[in-house]
Formats: sequence, C-alpha cells, structure tokens
Amino acid sequence: MPERILGIDPGTHNMGYGIIDAMGPDYYHVASGALRPSRSEWLGGRLWRLLQDLLNLIDEYKPTALAVERPFVPRGQSDSQRSNVASALAIGQAEALVLIAAAARDLPLERYAPGEIKKAVSNDGRGSKLQVQEMVRLILRLAEPPQPLDATDALAVAICHLQSQHVRELVEASRK
Amino acid sequence: MPERILGIDPGTHNMGYGIIDAMGPDYYHVASGALRPSRSEWLGGRLWRLLQDLLNLIDEYKPTALAVERPFVPRGQSDSQRSNVASALAIGQAEALVLIAAAARDLPLERYAPGEIKKAVSNDGRGSKLQVQEMVRLILRLAEPPQPLDATDALAVAICHLQSQHVRELVEASRK
Repeated sequence: MPERILGIDPGTHNMGYGIIDAMGPDYYHVASGALRPSRSEWLGGRLWRLLQDLLNLIDEYKPTALAVERPFVPRGQSDSQRSNVASALAIGQAEALVLIAAAARDLPLERYAPGEIKKAVSNDGRGSKLQVQEMVRLILRLAEPPQPLDATDALAVAICHLQSQHVRELVEASRK
Repeated sequence: MPERILGIDPGTHNMGYGIIDAMGPDYYHVASGALRPSRSEWLGGRLWRLLQDLLNLIDEYKPTALAVERPFVPRGQSDSQRSNVASALAIGQAEALVLIAAAARDLPLERYAPGEIKKAVSNDGRGSKLQVQEMVRLILRLAEPPQPLDATDALAVAICHLQSQHVRELVEASRK
C-alpha cells in the first residue's frame, strides 16, 4: 500500500491542496489545486464551504495522513503588531478547518514550519516561490509546474512530510 | 415567537454558552454552561468535539441567532508580541468553530467587542468578572449567579446582542 499524503496550504480565501503517493523513495503527483469559496460569501459561509470541500477531498482520495503549513509566529518586533495579530486570527481560522477535517476522519496530521518546508524542496531553505515551484515540478517529474501557486505550496508540504517521516523511520531503525 | 439568542464565549478548552429568550423587554434564562472537551485530546480532536457539541446545542435549543465575543486585537505595544500572536491563533481557531456552526445551520451571527459586552451589563463598561456575573444574575432574575464563569460571559454576550438589536430597531422605526 503506498502512502498517500494530503498537503494543505491554509487560507480562508484560497486553500491550496496537493496529494502525493509515495512508493519508497518515489513520489507521484495524484492531484492538486486550490479550494476557493465565493468572495461574496461571509466569513462563516466560506469556512463552512471550505470544511465541506476538504472533507469531500479526503473522502474522494482517501489519504493516509494530512500535512499542513504551521502558522509563522514572528519572534522580533514588526511594523504593525496589530496587523500581525489580525492575520494570526485569520490563519488560526483556516488552520482550525484542517485540524477539524483531520479529526473528523480520524487521520494523523503533522504541522511543518515554513522554513522546514522550503528546506525540504530546496536544500538551503531559501529560494523564491518560483524556485520552490520548479523544485516541486522536478521532484514529482511533472512536464509543467503545478498551478496555481497555492497548489505548489501544498505539494511542497506533502513532500516535506514524506521526507521528515523517512528521516524518522531511519532514526527508529538505527535504534533497533 | 420569542427571540432566542445563543451567546458564546469562545475558547478551545472551555467554550461558554448561554441561551436567552426575549419577550419584548423581558429576558429569560433558558440554559447555560460550558463545553469542555477532554484536556488529553489533541487540538484537532477538541475542535471537532466542540463543533459537534455546538451543533447539538443549536439543534436542541433552536436559537434564532448567535452572538459571540469578538477577539480583542490590542492597539498598543505589549510585553510579548509573540504570545499575543500565539493567543490570537488559538482565539481564531475557537472563533472559526462558532462561524462554521452558524453557517452550517444558516443562522445569523453577530460579533461584539469585549468592551461593548461589559457596557451592556454594567453601564460604565468596567466592572470585574464578579460584578458582571451579579449584573447578569439581576437582569435574568436568577436566584443564584450562573455557573461557571464562562457561562456568565456567554449570557452577557446574548444580553448585549438583544440590547444592540433593540437599539437598531428603535433607530429603524424612527426613520420610517
């Protein structure tokens, strides 16, 4: 049985998703895209729509685990604390959906920091959005880069999860 | 038909709720309490449990509207921006549940700032938790103060909603 990871890039307007199968070291692109509830819908309606879409994705593709980008909590000062807190609220809302969907279908969920995800696909942990997109294309042996960008980020989270898990398995095996 | 308001004090460990019927200027306590998912449950499991409990409350008591405390976004600097952002994430998660529950049952939802809620039950907008509790007890003509404190806060949100709505109706009527 291959492992099938559903990676998610959370947002309340755009929720990127990417599904990858892993057979040992080989990763296969299964599906990717972005869930986009109507912009004219109120916040509650968008969240409810996104939760249902996410559960439908899980029921259709039956992933074995979920992986999501962990919100970035800044350490230093910033221009506007107020806007940071406001955007943290929105990210918290989007993240809640993913947590609920995983719990509702009794699936394991791992969260990865933005830096970890970039490192998993670009070695040095830096690299622009476009470089990440190109690396994801190469890793999954796709003819074209996956579209839209939210889908690329979601695929990168899934790749990050598979690599981290591989490392965890190696560590566990070495202990035996 | 009386109006029936479900007020909610959001939290991912403790979610206070308070249900009030309004017949004109008279408010009646219907039910109140706190939803408390197991502390040993992981965050996703707690959110999923809380969402189901909230939907069950709505299906049992059939409120005509929901009212929730709007997260407080600080204007000034504070000791720790990091902890503010982290707690904003948690509040965003708890708020998402309430938004989803309202949308799932197609009910109107209003959000009120902490200051508005205190003003609705204590005139001057100040007052300790215990004073708010005593005011809620008096407004609802209860023999004992409602327990626990999360339930009191939720009842205060519902009272705030009914009063705001009453003011809105007076303004609308004066325009006709």
